[in-house]
Order: sequence, then C-alpha cells, then structure tokens
Amino acid sequence: MSDMIRILGIDPGLRRTGWGIIDVTGNRLIFVACGTVTSDAETTLAERLAQLYRGVEDVVRRFEPNEAAVENTFVNKDATATLKLGQARGIAMVVPSLAGLPVSEYEPNKVKKSIVGAGHADKKQVEMMIGILLPKADPKTMDAVDALAIAITHAHHRGPARLHA
Amino acid sequence: MSDMIRILGIDPGLRRTGWGIIDVTGNRLIFVACGTVTSDAETTLAERLAQLYRGVEDVVRRFEPNEAAVENTFVNKDATATLKLGQARGIAMVVPSLAGLPVSEYEPNKVKKSIVGAGHADKKQVEMMIGILLPKADPKTMDAVDALAIAITHAHHRGPARLHA
Repeated sequence: MSDMIRILGIDPGLRRTGWGIIDVTGNRLIFVACGTVTSDAETTLAERLAQLYRGVEDVVRRFEPNEAAVENTFVNKDATATLKLGQARGIAMVVPSLAGLPVSEYEPNKVKKSIVGAGHADKKQVEMMIGILLPKADPKTMDAVDALAIAITHAHHRGPARLHA
Repeated sequence: MSDMIRILGIDPGLRRTGWGIIDVTGNRLIFVACGTVTSDAETTLAERLAQLYRGVEDVVRRFEPNEAAVENTFVNKDATATLKLGQARGIAMVVPSLAGLPVSEYEPNKVKKSIVGAGHADKKQVEMMIGILLPKADPKTMDAVDALAIAITHAHHRGPARLHA
C-alpha cells in the first residue's frame, strides 16, 4: 500500500467549510469520508475562525491525509464577502500546512473541468459526477460535494500516485 | 498588579504582520515590545500563512497577553488584494482566539481618532503620537506602529483595566 495517497479536499467558507477525503492508488479513487465544519454565526469572528480551525484540525488528525487541496476562488462583487471568505480560506490552508502537508490550490473552472469535462458545469452536474466517480460517497451538503471534487481534481493533476519524500 | 492588563495589537498583512504589546494599569500605558512577522514571498501561500501563524503564536507564548485587538480593514478596490489580506487576517485573529484571548476589532478611522483625535489623520501623525504616548517604543516598521496604535485604541475602548473572568 506504499503507493496509496490520501488526499484532503477543502471548500472553505466562514459559515460552512466542506471537507472530503479520498484514497488514490494508481488511477483508482476510493471514497473515505466527507463532511462539513460549521461555525456559530452568533459568536465573534475570532471564535468562529477558531471553530473552523479546530474542525479542520480534527479531520487532519483523524484521517491523516498526505496532501491537501483547496479551491482558489473569490467573490469579486462584494469586498466584505471576499474578506470573510479570505479569512476562512486562511484557516483552511494553514491547518494542513502546519501539519506538514503540501497544499495545492485549484481554480473553480479547473475543478469543474476535471470532474465534468467542462469549465462551466453547474453544481448539479458536479454532484452527479461525484456520485459516479465515488459511488460510496454520501455528501450531506454541497460544500462536501465541492470538497470531494477538489480532492479528485488534485488526484488528476498531482501526477502519479506516489508519496513525495 | 492584579489590575494590570496586557494587550496585543495586530496589524495583519500577508507580507508583513505588525504586532505590539502594551501593559495598561488604570490610565497608564506602558510599552512592552513590538515587532513584525514576515512571510517569505518566494514560497507557497499555505507555507506563508503557516509562517505568520508560527510568528504570532510565538509572540502570544512569549508575552502572554490577556486580550487582543486587530484592525478591521479591507481593500475594496482589488478583490485579489482583499482575499490576501483576509487570509492573513484570519491567521492574526485565530491565533489569540485559540489561546483563549478575547479578540476585538477596530475600524481604521476609530484607531486614528483614538490616537490622533481625528479619523483622517495620516500615518506620520499616528507615528508621532505613538512616540508621545509610548516614549520607550522603538517600532522599526509602520506595521509595528499601527499594531501599537491598535493596542492603545483597545486600551481606550475596553473600559476600566480589569481582567475579565
């Protein structure tokens, strides 16, 4: 099993951060787990970021992925929303980085193209393809679907499944 | 000394995050330390965020502040810059929050008003007032000056200097 790679995909958001774990052996993708880390909108921003941090840290501890991938998106219509997303994204990236994992970034269009074959696919097409590519996956939220899509995108783009030294 | 409060002010930025520590006893402000945490522009975003995290964590460990304050700013002209700042700001807020400190946020105009007496003060006026309010301070960067200004703003707005339970 030394040629198996475990990938953590993360779809960051302040309210909900989706995560998905897959194992890759050669061309084979195996679903491991997925879920959503939420933050309590009633509390302070600093505490919400700490909740996301602890949630992602818990996923990294439990599943011990070898590599991580995060969606590289921004909301350019609204600076306040972009700042919020940036804050959540900082947490999503720093947790695996502090754990020593390489963290890759993928544009949303690259993720869609990798999963559906077209950069302009809609969310339903992505969801359907996740069901085909990972038949055992049971994502409860679109954030978890997107996180699995990001993990698969990384599996496609990272090259042959071998552990980096 | 039970009525003394130690405040950490942070001016977040991906390239340079300024920090400043002051002690407050009643109306008295005492400079403790200040500095700048930098990230290596040549490395990945995830690693840069980890560098900021470790740098701010080191400050919190060494100086053991009781409360933290972070500037609440955003660059609304450029979504990419706003996203970058958001990511750095997420790190600046989550480190003291994970250490159990309350983290307050202050608008730039409130900081300027608190230090200079006017919301539209320029950076040189802020720097000059820091020299008067904290004569022993030796900030080497404007980021450290701004971090001390944020710490003083929190001292003015937090109410009487007593430890929250």
